Amino acid sequence: MTEDGEEMHALVERLYPLCRSITGDGVRATLDIVGEYIPLQVHEVPTGTQVLDWTVPQEWNIRDAYIADTTGRRVVDFAKSSLHVLGYSVPVSATMPLAELREHLHTLPDHPSWVPYRTSYYKPEWGFCLAQETLDALPDGEYEVRIDSTLADGHLTYAEHVVPGQVPDEVIVSCHVCHPSLANDNLAGIAVATFLARALARETPYYTYRFIYAPGTIGAITWLARNAERIDRVKHGLVLACAGDRGQLTYKRSRRGDAEIDRVLRHVLATSERPHHVAEFTPYGYDERQFCSPGFDLGVGSLSRTPYARYPEYHTSADNPDFVSPEAMADTLAVCREAFTVLDRNRRYLNLSPYGEPQLGRRGLYDSLGGRSDAKQAEMAMLWVLNLSDGEHSLLDVAERSGLPFDTVAATAGALHGAGLIKA
Amino acid sequence: MTEDGEEMHALVERLYPLCRSITGDGVRATLDIVGEYIPLQVHEVPTGTQVLDWTVPQEWNIRDAYIADTTGRRVVDFAKSSLHVLGYSVPVSATMPLAELREHLHTLPDHPSWVPYRTSYYKPEWGFCLAQETLDALPDGEYEVRIDSTLADGHLTYAEHVVPGQVPDEVIVSCHVCHPSLANDNLAGIAVATFLARALARETPYYTYRFIYAPGTIGAITWLARNAERIDRVKHGLVLACAGDRGQLTYKRSRRGDAEIDRVLRHVLATSERPHHVAEFTPYGYDERQFCSPGFDLGVGSLSRTPYARYPEYHTSADNPDFVSPEAMADTLAVCREAFTVLDRNRRYLNLSPYGEPQLGRRGLYDSLGGRSDAKQAEMAMLWVLNLSDGEHSLLDVAERSGLPFDTVAATAGALHGAGLIKA
Amino acid sequence: MTEDGEEMHALVERLYPLCRSITGDGVRATLDIVGEYIPLQVHEVPTGTQVLDWTVPQEWNIRDAYIADTTGRRVVDFAKSSLHVLGYSVPVSATMPLAELREHLHTLPDHPSWVPYRTSYYKPEWGFCLAQETLDALPDGEYEVRIDSTLADGHLTYAEHVVPGQVPDEVIVSCHVCHPSLANDNLAGIAVATFLARALARETPYYTYRFIYAPGTIGAITWLARNAERIDRVKHGLVLACAGDRGQLTYKRSRRGDAEIDRVLRHVLATSERPHHVAEFTPYGYDERQFCSPGFDLGVGSLSRTPYARYPEYHTSADNPDFVSPEAMADTLAVCREAFTVLDRNRRYLNLSPYGEPQLGRRGLYDSLGGRSDAKQAEMAMLWVLNLSDGEHSLLDVAERSGLPFDTVAATAGALHGAGLIKA
Repeated sequence: MTEDGEEMHALVERLYPLCRSITGDGVRATLDIVGEYIPLQVHEVPTGTQVLDWTVPQEWNIRDAYIADTTGRRVVDFAKSSLHVLGYSVPVSATMPLAELREHLHTLPDHPSWVPYRTSYYKPEWGFCLAQETLDALPDGEYEVRIDSTLADGHLTYAEHVVPGQVPDEVIVSCHVCHPSLANDNLAGIAVATFLARALARETPYYTYRFIYAPGTIGAITWLARNAERIDRVKHGLVLACAGDRGQLTYKRSRRGDAEIDRVLRHVLATSERPHHVAEFTPYGYDERQFCSPGFDLGVGSLSRTPYARYPEYHTSADNPDFVSPEAMADTLAVCREAFTVLDRNRRYLNLSPYGEPQLGRRGLYDSLGGRSDAKQAEMAMLWVLNLSDGEHSLLDVAERSGLPFDTVAATAGALHGAGLIKA
Repeated sequence: MTEDGEEMHALVERLYPLCRSITGDGVRATLDIVGEYIPLQVHEVPTGTQVLDWTVPQEWNIRDAYIADTTGRRVVDFAKSSLHVLGYSVPVSATMPLAELREHLHTLPDHPSWVPYRTSYYKPEWGFCLAQETLDALPDGEYEVRIDSTLADGHLTYAEHVVPGQVPDEVIVSCHVCHPSLANDNLAGIAVATFLARALARETPYYTYRFIYAPGTIGAITWLARNAERIDRVKHGLVLACAGDRGQLTYKRSRRGDAEIDRVLRHVLATSERPHHVAEFTPYGYDERQFCSPGFDLGVGSLSRTPYARYPEYHTSADNPDFVSPEAMADTLAVCREAFTVLDRNRRYLNLSPYGEPQLGRRGLYDSLGGRSDAKQAEMAMLWVLNLSDGEHSLLDVAERSGLPFDTVAATAGALHGAGLIKA
Repeated sequence: MTEDGEEMHALVERLYPLCRSITGDGVRATLDIVGEYIPLQVHEVPTGTQVLDWTVPQEWNIRDAYIADTTGRRVVDFAKSSLHVLGYSVPVSATMPLAELREHLHTLPDHPSWVPYRTSYYKPEWGFCLAQETLDALPDGEYEVRIDSTLADGHLTYAEHVVPGQVPDEVIVSCHVCHPSLANDNLAGIAVATFLARALARETPYYTYRFIYAPGTIGAITWLARNAERIDRVKHGLVLACAGDRGQLTYKRSRRGDAEIDRVLRHVLATSERPHHVAEFTPYGYDERQFCSPGFDLGVGSLSRTPYARYPEYHTSADNPDFVSPEAMADTLAVCREAFTVLDRNRRYLNLSPYGEPQLGRRGLYDSLGGRSDAKQAEMAMLWVLNLSDGEHSLLDVAERSGLPFDTVAATAGALHGAGLIKA
């Protein structure tokens, strides 16, 4: 897992310089790199396409941007950080005094060395983001301002990767790919999703797992609009965001609050040694907002480490690759894998011999239990599975009510199923 | 509001000397005075009328009553306090030794200077209530005893005041008018109800508010018996009693326990800065007993300050106008008004664009939000209202689940309704 | 009750020496003695009978067993304790060195003076149980080993005692009779059941009470198999085990968790002064495992003092008659009787005058209430019973919600029923 952590961190570092936005070549370049790890199906949706209540906007691309002083020195340079330009800035090429320029400048006075991240997707504006220190050091005078961007009809780009399962019922894993040079938000989420997909692809999971790499809000809305006929197949889902900082894990419940994914994540976190927090649903955050809108109301939760806006580095240049750690990403990945293992094995069984206990000894089930202490736990698990397998209780219910490890319960159910005592 | 408090206290002082009972001219005089503040429809129900399981009793009136010593000095005088006569005393005119008289005397040995309040509505008796100190000072000897009362066929009197609303669905506000010279129980309730009615009449509330001034038990039973066909219209209700003492507010839930009125009062009290107590329903107390009998089971709770029998002054001459304060009555009134404001605005809406979030920016809804910090709260409120408006959740649900002020939620729902995004 | 305690202890002492097992003459001798206290219907079920998923095994009987040294001295002797032989041991008659014999010896190294209790019902084996001290004192050398047992077609024996009630609906009380010389597990349970039956027979209870004396697991399964058509009559039940040690009482809920028996036991224990524990259901323990298997899912809980395996003496020679006390058995009996009194009186009534309160005074109900303080409690009980008698709430609900004693509530309901105000 440490190796995965290092590889995920390397992926974050590689993706970091790219200037992503809700459309444009930065997203495409990002998906190209992810595509080196797992095969991606890339979708291009034309500007103007109606998607639910929204319309796909014009595509934004940017080649260069800077503020230069009268000597031609670039005092703010897009080439150094994609954060320096207000996202979706309209093009500009002008010379103006600092006083006038100030109205287009964004800084963080409380963190004078950090550059903020700002966008204006739906209101045509231009602007620069820079450190307060940089601004303070600028003498009055004339500055050359140039943003070489294009806002024109084009496409919105998103990608999917599917790990086929034993059943067509789907689990979706979604991460947003629209943020520029920000490591935790959401390169860490992209990296964890990618390595999760790669790990799942090594086995044939029970569910079909669909990974969605899409720009926030408009991307999820576009995916939902284009997959209306497939939505009923989506049984569970997880939005990955802020997945790499050193804080404890936070699981945010789906709107339903007690969807199976909610119960699985709660169980996995509660039975692990990890400090963690389980938060109630709110209609603010990442794309769980769309998946959990009342018309869809999908069982989709969200896994983060420190949630958005709860750390000072959020949406600033301080959210850089140093802010995320290989260990933290490996830990997030481990929890995802454990949760999906539980989800995949969680079933409701029906005891075929529900009147009294079946005679387990006669079927050699006691003998099949191995060592003495394990045997006792497995015997308890057998009794619990048999007792609660009335079609109402899942194996997770059994694990929670009995206090036995889910793994023991699931293995025991497998043995009982093999002996013909229960059916799925 | 301070002005209201002073006026309510003045009303209490004016009503205080009257000798009210479950029937009789004291009730009529009380309603005459209340009628100076708000128009009342007065109902007179003849003795003998069958009302549910009960029968309207004979009407009781009293003109004079006293105990006089052999010198003719009145040692106990009804003219000084209506409490001095056992309620519904039959007439008496006799001379008897103190030893014999004692069997008809009621005192409070633990509070020797207080006069108790006692009645015998359904068992013909006569008696006097007096301070233990007064009794102790009486020398043995003969006393003249006289109660100039009439118990005869007549009427039971109650009154209603209706504030018409936008819908015929009703909220009833009920207070008992049968207690003689007791300020907290229930002149304060009468005063708060009256000023509440006057305040509501200044606007057109959503619900129709019906104020009921009736004697306890038999009055509520009479009202219920005579309004059988209207009961289905009663959606919510509040019984006001002990509304003026300096103790903290107590809301007693309806029998249902989670009726909308229960949730509204709990919310208003919980989100206010007030210390308060929310009590479970019991079938003892004031007229919630009748409204919450199992055949009706109305959503009617009860608002008090210190509940009946929980203060030593209860049902004694110490429950006088000094025992209630303008500030306490103003506070009770304020909570009622706040609660009815919430109740009136509480709706279930249906999100008309429930698939994904609607694009709020396009509709100018973000721009409509005013100042920056308010705007953020209003944006959250929009997302919450949209997310929970599935026909199942009320605005109060939204406020409680989101932690946002009800007022913000309701205003936001108004804006969304105006934009055509939700419907009632 | 002290007398009952002493008599129950005498019964335990009398039953103690017998070698019980899941079949055989030890069970018959036990039932013969119980039959001196209450009439028993004894059932004999032939070997090979199919009972649910099981088959009645061969019958086991034992006449003698010992380990003798070369001098002929019996170093382990079945005549001294029925625990010395592995239950269901096949016969053996041999001479062997201690090293070889050791494989058939069971001891408790942690309690060197205690003899363990071991069985091998379904796997043919022979063995001896002895104190570690005894084993340590044995010199190497040859030993004569003899078990004079028979394992042959025969019968499984169980017994029933029925106390007829006013209705055919049944309460079952079950205790296992298969353990040899162990006092708490389960001679105390047998004794309490027997004296409970005797006490119930002195009155005509509401329910019909059926007492089942059967070997654990296979006996309960046999009873269930042979009473398939009667199961629907079983409304409640209690398994009695470990009923005599000096620890606090433990009630283990039925699988349903909130069956009426669960609520009754919880109420009786909670309102008594006794320290106690209410445990959740687990599918391990005594015959509640069978009664609460998902196909039956009966409302059967289990009452113990210290639960099985929670005391070191469990399944050892230290669980002897000194380990159980007359006082503890009397206390268990008292709780059973109190619980069945509540169960028998617990009804749902319907208020026939549900609109408003009925006029209680007119019916003389206030006068019927006796002393002043009782009268107040009885008045409250009347109001509670009337208010909650909507067909949904039982008298136990009324007692729990009102905080009034069940006995007061039930007596009050009787008075209201007598006055025609409620019907069952």
